[in-house]
Amino acid sequence: MTTVKLLTDAEAAAIPAVRAVFEDIRATRKSDFINNFWRGLANDPPTLKRVWESVKAVMGAEGTLDPLVKEMIYIAVSTANGCNYCVHSHSAAARAKGQTAAQHAELIAVISLAGQTNHLANAMQIPVDREFQFGG
Amino acid sequence: MTTVKLLTDAEAAAIPAVRAVFEDIRATRKSDFINNFWRGLANDPPTLKRVWESVKAVMGAEGTLDPLVKEMIYIAVSTANGCNYCVHSHSAAARAKGQTAAQHAELIAVISLAGQTNHLANAMQIPVDREFQFGG
Amino acid sequence: MTTVKLLTDAEAAAIPAVRAVFEDIRATRKSDFINNFWRGLANDPPTLKRVWESVKAVMGAEGTLDPLVKEMIYIAVSTANGCNYCVHSHSAAARAKGQTAAQHAELIAVISLAGQTNHLANAMQIPVDREFQFGG
Amino acid sequence: MTTVKLLTDAEAAAIPAVRAVFEDIRATRKSDFINNFWRGLANDPPTLKRVWESVKAVMGAEGTLDPLVKEMIYIAVSTANGCNYCVHSHSAAARAKGQTAAQHAELIAVISLAGQTNHLANAMQIPVDREFQFGG
Amino acid sequence: MTTVKLLTDAEAAAIPAVRAVFEDIRATRKSDFINNFWRGLANDPPTLKRVWESVKAVMGAEGTLDPLVKEMIYIAVSTANGCNYCVHSHSAAARAKGQTAAQHAELIAVISLAGQTNHLANAMQIPVDREFQFGG
Amino acid sequence: MTTVKLLTDAEAAAIPAVRAVFEDIRATRKSDFINNFWRGLANDPPTLKRVWESVKAVMGAEGTLDPLVKEMIYIAVSTANGCNYCVHSHSAAARAKGQTAAQHAELIAVISLAGQTNHLANAMQIPVDREFQFGG
Repeated sequence: MTTVKLLTDAEAAAIPAVRAVFEDIRATRKSDFINNFWRGLANDPPTLKRVWESVKAVMGAEGTLDPLVKEMIYIAVSTANGCNYCVHSHSAAARAKGQTAAQHAELIAVISLAGQTNHLANAMQIPVDREFQFGG
Repeated sequence: MTTVKLLTDAEAAAIPAVRAVFEDIRATRKSDFINNFWRGLANDPPTLKRVWESVKAVMGAEGTLDPLVKEMIYIAVSTANGCNYCVHSHSAAARAKGQTAAQHAELIAVISLAGQTNHLANAMQIPVDREFQFGG
Repeated sequence: MTTVKLLTDAEAAAIPAVRAVFEDIRATRKSDFINNFWRGLANDPPTLKRVWESVKAVMGAEGTLDPLVKEMIYIAVSTANGCNYCVHSHSAAARAKGQTAAQHAELIAVISLAGQTNHLANAMQIPVDREFQFGG
Repeated sequence: MTTVKLLTDAEAAAIPAVRAVFEDIRATRKSDFINNFWRGLANDPPTLKRVWESVKAVMGAEGTLDPLVKEMIYIAVSTANGCNYCVHSHSAAARAKGQTAAQHAELIAVISLAGQTNHLANAMQIPVDREFQFGG
Repeated sequence: MTTVKLLTDAEAAAIPAVRAVFEDIRATRKSDFINNFWRGLANDPPTLKRVWESVKAVMGAEGTLDPLVKEMIYIAVSTANGCNYCVHSHSAAARAKGQTAAQHAELIAVISLAGQTNHLANAMQIPVDREFQFGG
Repeated sequence: MTTVKLLTDAEAAAIPAVRAVFEDIRATRKSDFINNFWRGLANDPPTLKRVWESVKAVMGAEGTLDPLVKEMIYIAVSTANGCNYCVHSHSAAARAKGQTAAQHAELIAVISLAGQTNHLANAMQIPVDREFQFGG
């Protein structure tokens, strides 16, 4: 059950601004598969385009972080935010980028340790040490 | 302002179970500095010991993830959970482990992109694609 | 799957305090439909009554905010909190109050932009500008 | 205390890509004031530009939602996410756009009602009613 | 820094609907102290009254849960939600109701364990066992 | 749908480190039932062992908090974090430990009141009263 319509390929193809993004997604990913997230966003072509271009810029950039590391960071945020869809989609993406079972296990161990100490620091309302100051 | 006392070095040294953990923190980190988080946890020696041993096991393990990558994952979770203390402490830890400004900028870009699409997926209540099934 | 029983109409009618609230919900909404949320709350008649009266007071008040605007604010909070039930129920309520597809698209665009910048501000731990001071 | 440097006007002006965005912020807002959020983001000019353009596109668009309504939605998300900076900055923005004390009071009443019922629905794990189905 | 004015005793006394609630808070708590939360809420007398009456009904009721247990539950929710004010105010309330240091330590241990396993269950997207079905 | 395999009894028994933990879970709980959470964690035997030992230490300890009170605190955190699995599993655990319907109703009433006032305090950005200072 969704709160918006998920556009079919035919419906997407009938809207030029959506078709253009879907074609770019397929070309960029070298795959015909368009996942539901984009089919929902397609109800709003300007947002579809803006979000896709952000994803391409951030996740596709030749930067200093490995593409698999970026997927792991994505999974970490999505887990903490309780976004079930995003945990699934980025866990699949991480596997597609070569994540091993051992790497996934370590990722989850770090995420849950952070979950634990986040709650401890919040419960004790620990003040930030001056030593942590940026540039300090 | 905290909800517990932060133990001083003298107070910590007076409790054998706390002193042992503090000594191990100092030896493991090759630094005399004990940050406030541990000084708060020291009110409960068994939890202090259990949490420190978890941190050592997860963050210090010779595994498949780079120590800096683990710090980035930690920052990602702490940001999403709104734990100000943890964002500060692990941002400092990442810098201490050699994180460059460019890596930090990319980290933040991924975290905020995830924050954006997490909200989109939740607002649209997008159903998980069968293609994301583990082992599928 | 729930953690409480969802009361049927017959079960609700058999408890005077529940029946009274259900009758008021039906009269206020001019509809026979009682959604699952109230059927679960009906296990605790005083809480059922208190919550329903709060909903009536806040959402039904003749105040300065348009009823549709209030539904959008409700959707925004529910999305950020990851309450799937509430996102669904208030998205349906917004449509029932005349929300257009264009309005829904704009709502989601604002929600996700806020999600993005919330994560940025938290990751950078930006201090509040004095200029934002209330009355400043 | 922050995890990044907040760029001064002189530092911002020395980086052409940052200067261009700061000039656009000033021109768009018809004000010389640049708040700390942008001074932090300025460490990463491409992200600064992308986020500012998103803010301009979403918050500045001539769409179907009133600019003040968008600020209220922004406050709602920021409150639920516990982003103190964002609550402050967008509460100031809402006042600047003419929000009355009565409107603010109603906004907060709706936000907190949603916070209450979000927790109730999550605690009871209420299943979504078929009647809420989009298009249903 | 706040987003609303905090009413002084003189300002509160000048508004009959606020004065009545403040008097009831003082009488109920047998203390002259009115904490900042109520001084902020006093900007909106109907919400002030509704929230105070809910607090009195839920926290003050002669029910099946011990008043201290209720404070601990309150601290647990506030910690997970990252509400710094609420963690402080209810930690103080728990101490005032006789919470020992050992009880507080156990409370925090449970909260942080839950934080850890919540993240694990979300990261693995574990399906609910049929055995957990209510009434099952 | 999960992001990891859930190990069957046969698969678990074939890995000595997993079999040992599963046997301890069964012996400790005096039940043959192993819920899905542990079957997912079993992909990473060291984390399985560490988490199980934490659960045993925290939830099973003869301390100052009643076992049922600990389950209620667990439910409170899990609800606020939106962990559906955990809300279900610990609501079942609370029932197994003798939680009455009246206690559950009160638990939910406190959780949702906290959800409400957490949002109010965050929206108003209420400063912590000096009176709440630990030791103050």
